[in-house]
Amino acid sequence: MQTVNQLMEKIEYAIRSHNLVWNSQPPVNLYEPVAYAMSAGGKRIRPLLVLLGCQLFSDEVDNALPAALAIEVFHNFTLLHDDIMDHADMRRGRPTVHRQFSDNAAILSGDAMAFLAYKLLLESRTGEMQQLTGLFTRTALEVCEGQQYDMDFETRMEVSTSEYIEMIRLKTAVLLGCALKAGAICGNAGDDSADGVYRIGINLGIAFQLQDDLLDTYGSEVEFGKKIGGDITANKKTYLLINALEMAPPAVRAELTGWISRKEFSRDEKVRAVRDIYDLLNIREKTEQLIRAYTGDAMELLDNLPVDEIRKEKLREICLKLLNRNS
Amino acid sequence: MQTVNQLMEKIEYAIRSHNLVWNSQPPVNLYEPVAYAMSAGGKRIRPLLVLLGCQLFSDEVDNALPAALAIEVFHNFTLLHDDIMDHADMRRGRPTVHRQFSDNAAILSGDAMAFLAYKLLLESRTGEMQQLTGLFTRTALEVCEGQQYDMDFETRMEVSTSEYIEMIRLKTAVLLGCALKAGAICGNAGDDSADGVYRIGINLGIAFQLQDDLLDTYGSEVEFGKKIGGDITANKKTYLLINALEMAPPAVRAELTGWISRKEFSRDEKVRAVRDIYDLLNIREKTEQLIRAYTGDAMELLDNLPVDEIRKEKLREICLKLLNRNS
Repeated sequence: MQTVNQLMEKIEYAIRSHNLVWNSQPPVNLYEPVAYAMSAGGKRIRPLLVLLGCQLFSDEVDNALPAALAIEVFHNFTLLHDDIMDHADMRRGRPTVHRQFSDNAAILSGDAMAFLAYKLLLESRTGEMQQLTGLFTRTALEVCEGQQYDMDFETRMEVSTSEYIEMIRLKTAVLLGCALKAGAICGNAGDDSADGVYRIGINLGIAFQLQDDLLDTYGSEVEFGKKIGGDITANKKTYLLINALEMAPPAVRAELTGWISRKEFSRDEKVRAVRDIYDLLNIREKTEQLIRAYTGDAMELLDNLPVDEIRKEKLREICLKLLNRNS
Repeated sequence: MQTVNQLMEKIEYAIRSHNLVWNSQPPVNLYEPVAYAMSAGGKRIRPLLVLLGCQLFSDEVDNALPAALAIEVFHNFTLLHDDIMDHADMRRGRPTVHRQFSDNAAILSGDAMAFLAYKLLLESRTGEMQQLTGLFTRTALEVCEGQQYDMDFETRMEVSTSEYIEMIRLKTAVLLGCALKAGAICGNAGDDSADGVYRIGINLGIAFQLQDDLLDTYGSEVEFGKKIGGDITANKKTYLLINALEMAPPAVRAELTGWISRKEFSRDEKVRAVRDIYDLLNIREKTEQLIRAYTGDAMELLDNLPVDEIRKEKLREICLKLLNRNS
């Protein structure tokens, strides 16, 4: 059994040995943005989940390394394209790829990363290659659907909390489910266990995204590493805002929609005012409660997984860490 | 043995029955641009090559239909993204996807098409799925590399004809090679035959692109369906221009580079002047000669393929038609 730190080192080493962070292969203008994106770090949660998913069933975690890299490269591909679509300037403390290079570079190098992900996935040592590529492909399509719903919601005033949960399931959670299940497949888990592991990832992913929403409004600026209130300023349809719009009595709702439609405002004043409304409606507590519910479901699924308790420890530790994070 | 028309009908029917041209599946904003792109027609050359590649070795061409659709969807994915990158407004007589919808729609629906291509490919009935997905993935990466070289060449004055041939090999020819080989794999061809068929596609693809270059300058406007001289007006680094720059004596070269660097000019005057230079340097004949050479290699490879002569007829017919086309 490997510790989380050992698995993390494996991932970083594999990223390096696959020339993903430094690549002199021509055409330079295609592969340099790939290396730029892959070298920016990030938490490497998804590849870690692949290895942890494998380690639930097998000691041969190296068998899951190609799939781990594939899913990390795929995740970064989505960031390249999402950052163009969202006009995002900064990511992980550096200019986004389309800012650093160009929109065209972010489109084409992003495309190359999508296929690079398949190339890595196909290097997996598994007798279940078709299951693995099928899972990955279905997930990739769902992530596109999630991103589409997210963009659709920007221009829609009425979004229900259940629509929102479905959106983050597609945009965020299915990839965590895919990561864990891909690892399980590489660890020769049976179908039932692999499905159970997938559902752990779904619950974890939804909790994870809700936690993200919460941190953007209620996090500590120092630990969060960026300014608090970005979502409020941009009228982003987060769980907090959607829930507040659903729950607010007419007068409070009018105040909230007033802030949303205002074109000119003081950033700090708007963030404070909207947060006051959230406080009034107990949005923070409700969100925390929902996070606990999804986390609880994930932990229960993990409890019921028919593998030795000792194999579950690392994954349980990481899940709880992810959901109690401050950044 | 099926005729070309029967195979074409199969393709159009399969495109329809897979809901590729009309799709009510949500999110609408994701799948509507896919249907828009797929319903615009086009020559469907690539899926036809998949079926013809299969029919060289087997009568069960239906086994190659999913791969045929996959490659057509992939090809259309590249068009969506290339048209953003090239700022192209029209395609197949209609506004391009990014003009009709938005850049974001063309990016995200394009991404979805890339994964949809894999989904279709994975529906293939073949014992060689890993070979098929590996071929497809390698090809997709090469197509990205080809598009990168094409964009790189736009801002480079010195491009050699051999660099150009390598670019069109990657951007255009490998997908035709992949189409024929994917069909061969689905037809249970042996490895040597599948490789031979791939090389037919490469030679055919290079000849095909050179023919495209030629038609843009020397085609008949009525049959070509768009204005002649687009490449000359845009200073596109075609085989014609690159060859002319390589061959021209100093004075002619100076005149040619003069036209290239001129910011203001009469379109018709520039097209006429550059074509006159091409004529002076026998560029048309040289290009036709090169097309014949690549076509000849393709035909020789086809001759040497160890399958019954009757199985080769349809592919030979299509190859010659493609290379004698006027549009």
